[in-house]
Amino acid sequence: MPDSIPENSVGIVKSQTLQFNTAIELDCGQVLNEYELVFETYGELNQNHSNAILICHALSSDHHVAGYYSMEDKKPGWWENYVGPGKPIDTNHFFVICCNNLGGCKGSTGPVSINPETGKLYGPDFPIVTVKDWVKSQKALSDKLKINKWFAIVGGSLGGMQVMQWAIDYPDLMYHAIVIAAAAKLSAQNIAFNEVARQAILSDPDFHQGRYYDHDTKPRRGLMLARMLGHITYLSDDSMRKKFGRDLREGKINYGFDVNFEVESYLRYQGASFVDRFDANTYLLMTKVLDYFDPASEYDGLISTAFKNTLAKFLVISFTSDWRFSPERSKEIVKGLLDCHRDVSYFEIKSHQGHDAFLMPIEDYMNVFSAYMETAATQKGLL
Amino acid sequence: MPDSIPENSVGIVKSQTLQFNTAIELDCGQVLNEYELVFETYGELNQNHSNAILICHALSSDHHVAGYYSMEDKKPGWWENYVGPGKPIDTNHFFVICCNNLGGCKGSTGPVSINPETGKLYGPDFPIVTVKDWVKSQKALSDKLKINKWFAIVGGSLGGMQVMQWAIDYPDLMYHAIVIAAAAKLSAQNIAFNEVARQAILSDPDFHQGRYYDHDTKPRRGLMLARMLGHITYLSDDSMRKKFGRDLREGKINYGFDVNFEVESYLRYQGASFVDRFDANTYLLMTKVLDYFDPASEYDGLISTAFKNTLAKFLVISFTSDWRFSPERSKEIVKGLLDCHRDVSYFEIKSHQGHDAFLMPIEDYMNVFSAYMETAATQKGLL
Repeated sequence: MPDSIPENSVGIVKSQTLQFNTAIELDCGQVLNEYELVFETYGELNQNHSNAILICHALSSDHHVAGYYSMEDKKPGWWENYVGPGKPIDTNHFFVICCNNLGGCKGSTGPVSINPETGKLYGPDFPIVTVKDWVKSQKALSDKLKINKWFAIVGGSLGGMQVMQWAIDYPDLMYHAIVIAAAAKLSAQNIAFNEVARQAILSDPDFHQGRYYDHDTKPRRGLMLARMLGHITYLSDDSMRKKFGRDLREGKINYGFDVNFEVESYLRYQGASFVDRFDANTYLLMTKVLDYFDPASEYDGLISTAFKNTLAKFLVISFTSDWRFSPERSKEIVKGLLDCHRDVSYFEIKSHQGHDAFLMPIEDYMNVFSAYMETAATQKGLL
Repeated sequence: MPDSIPENSVGIVKSQTLQFNTAIELDCGQVLNEYELVFETYGELNQNHSNAILICHALSSDHHVAGYYSMEDKKPGWWENYVGPGKPIDTNHFFVICCNNLGGCKGSTGPVSINPETGKLYGPDFPIVTVKDWVKSQKALSDKLKINKWFAIVGGSLGGMQVMQWAIDYPDLMYHAIVIAAAAKLSAQNIAFNEVARQAILSDPDFHQGRYYDHDTKPRRGLMLARMLGHITYLSDDSMRKKFGRDLREGKINYGFDVNFEVESYLRYQGASFVDRFDANTYLLMTKVLDYFDPASEYDGLISTAFKNTLAKFLVISFTSDWRFSPERSKEIVKGLLDCHRDVSYFEIKSHQGHDAFLMPIEDYMNVFSAYMETAATQKGLL
């Protein structure tokens, strides 16, 4: 954190929590009779509630999208580059909300919450949720906040999947659907990476069938491996080359298994620090949410049929160096929308940062995103 | 194994072992005073020893390139598609040798051999070897076998790296260098995947600092994860899609962590079966051999300078869907050779099988490989 908060930041923020007592029936058949969602908001909701934007978060992120928790806070929210006064999602005009999703570990009901039926932590008993379940819970949140129609729902990666599901499940409750670096479903390779990550956690002797809390431990090794692997897929070969090349930590080969190359040091650090801030049961759940996402499966396997009843105007953005969800995957979304004559704008942004590009300040991406939002806001009379 | 051995197979084969009592000084500075190499040969060595081909094996393979060990043997050697009578490496004309590399676990001296100084298994004390060390030991093997000059040295993946090192270190001891699906050095992404694999093994509580033999166990979980991850990088996204798609094992989502998708089942099977046939310490070593390979580093970082003294005619082959060592990496080799005016033929084979393509019977690949070998053999008067 700098000495003072930057002027184009939403500044000091605070999260809020809402309790929901209306049962939610999940795709897996289980019912949550009560649950909590933690969320943050930035900007002001206007009088007729027409300027609200919902941001959906990805695998390991949360509701802390922008701003700082205190003057001492070292890092802002995960999308500080894109959400704030004068930024693409301009908090001078828009009221922005993001909630930690069900099953998360940052305050919303999930594995590290108390199961009211047992008085103990849910742990591995927390049901496997789906993108559809999340959208349902986000709809409950919008009802509580009296937002009848979202100006836009926005998300990158797994967040973009929630946006698509919203557009399919609640077509008349949103104007704009902004889907960034996402896919209409995971490929076998995507699932394979998730499976290795899961096996790393599940096979860690400290996992204790997910009841590691009772053993006063956690599957550190497994979660660390999962995160290291994840990081490889978030970066491109090119960005790794730019970032690390074959640089040696101590200038020479050590003929041993200690850190030798810079990239090893980076991965170990990323893995180790993740373990301190994320829950393994939540990580397992999130990978399953990704694997199971396939809205077309309810529509004869055709994404264009799934999109048929959507009413939102879509903005789809992909990044050339993203090999986790490559531009080809975004084009499948665009083709699905065009096949059923939906309104869609598509931009493929040149970048070397891989999947992580969706979080990065990239000029073309910023410009396209800002221009789209400004035009949309002007058309709706918000500017 | 079919009821009878196919006619175009080298048939029933037997491995041989040679003991070397001349010390070999390794790149790491350690010295092996004695070592053994296990190898197989196919075809007949001609009178003037001019028809010998050395095949160099990759990460997890070994000296069993072709043929069967018995009539009951279920699977032939790993390059049965390419080595045999009438095949690209035609054993009607050529005498073919492949040895298990130093540090291996299939019979050559390595972690599972007895350290003569202690009378116990080397285990983690086996020194970290390099491609250069391997080439040195293969040179010792050729001396014993009285092969003064190889007709060709051939290898795919890590095998291709040995071929390049041979051409650099012993330029006048070979006529042809055949480098398939390889790279002149690993990228940061390649090293990163290896590092995750290593961490999976090293952090397995059953690893016991590499002394798992003494504990009557092995790091099954770690080695399994390493192999699962490896498999993802051997296949292409496309080949995984063709092979598994999003097919579900039992036709429906199970909302749990048991095998759900076919690709999960495949990976778990590949991982589990590997553990039964491979040693974890050897796996760790092999990944380091890969990471450290960088012949240009001895020549001001320029691969063209490294290649300057080579005399071999090169054949370089890559595969369009190989993302572990992509065609771009092969083109770096070709460019390095052209920059110093070496003789090189390059073929980029269209394929969907990813890195594994180099093992597969692909028509274009077979044709190119056969044509090259035939022409070369004719020129040398072997046909």
